[in-house]
Amino acid sequence: MTRVMASGVFDLIHLGHISYLEQARSYGDELVVVIACDSTVRRKKHEPVNPDTVRARIVGCLKPVDSVVIGREGDIYDTVRELAPDVIVLGFDQKFREEDLERELSERGMGHIRVVRADECADDLNATRRLIAKIRGDS
Amino acid sequence: MTRVMASGVFDLIHLGHISYLEQARSYGDELVVVIACDSTVRRKKHEPVNPDTVRARIVGCLKPVDSVVIGREGDIYDTVRELAPDVIVLGFDQKFREEDLERELSERGMGHIRVVRADECADDLNATRRLIAKIRGDS
Repeated sequence: MTRVMASGVFDLIHLGHISYLEQARSYGDELVVVIACDSTVRRKKHEPVNPDTVRARIVGCLKPVDSVVIGREGDIYDTVRELAPDVIVLGFDQKFREEDLERELSERGMGHIRVVRADECADDLNATRRLIAKIRGDS
Repeated sequence: MTRVMASGVFDLIHLGHISYLEQARSYGDELVVVIACDSTVRRKKHEPVNPDTVRARIVGCLKPVDSVVIGREGDIYDTVRELAPDVIVLGFDQKFREEDLERELSERGMGHIRVVRADECADDLNATRRLIAKIRGDS
């Protein structure tokens, strides 16, 4: 049994999300997804359109996903320790570098966790910000 | 084996969609979803944010859904005849009245098809137009 962890905001589901989750699921038998909580989204990106509870419910309804957890603000490594994944799959545009994450995990006694990066979705024409721009009528 | 048919635009997936599809799936063993094609959406509602191919791919990734078909412009009854559902589940806000649809089906030799209406999702705070208004910053 290989448990895979993926993470993200997952506001307004687009093909890039689907591709990321399908790729993540392919690395194991069970995919758990950590949904960024609203306070984390506000701090790092922007006001979420959907609250974390709604984002979690929708992501949990996607076929590649076995379970969903809403992340806590603060130390991601506590969440990783609790979920105990065998593999962490980073989204193609997530800012962590694989080697940095592996080193941080190793320093916390979790050096056995494999870190891989998903490929960009070939037809990712619909990332959330572009969706929002389109809805707003920005050129 | 009871085949259920649901239909809609399914642009920007929200909890109302999820609730509708989960309810529809509960009426049988197999759920096929007809996605309104872009020309139909333009004629009836508004310009779709996502093209029909993308909407179909995302809906096909939802757990309650077994298969997805993009509708043709024109006679919905041709699509119903091809898909041969045992049950058609209408969304709570779809304009067809159950009795009108049953009569139309009956006149076309498909009177055996049961027509039911889904309940409104209790937490449907996120219908597409409200999502779009929120993104646009409308009050």
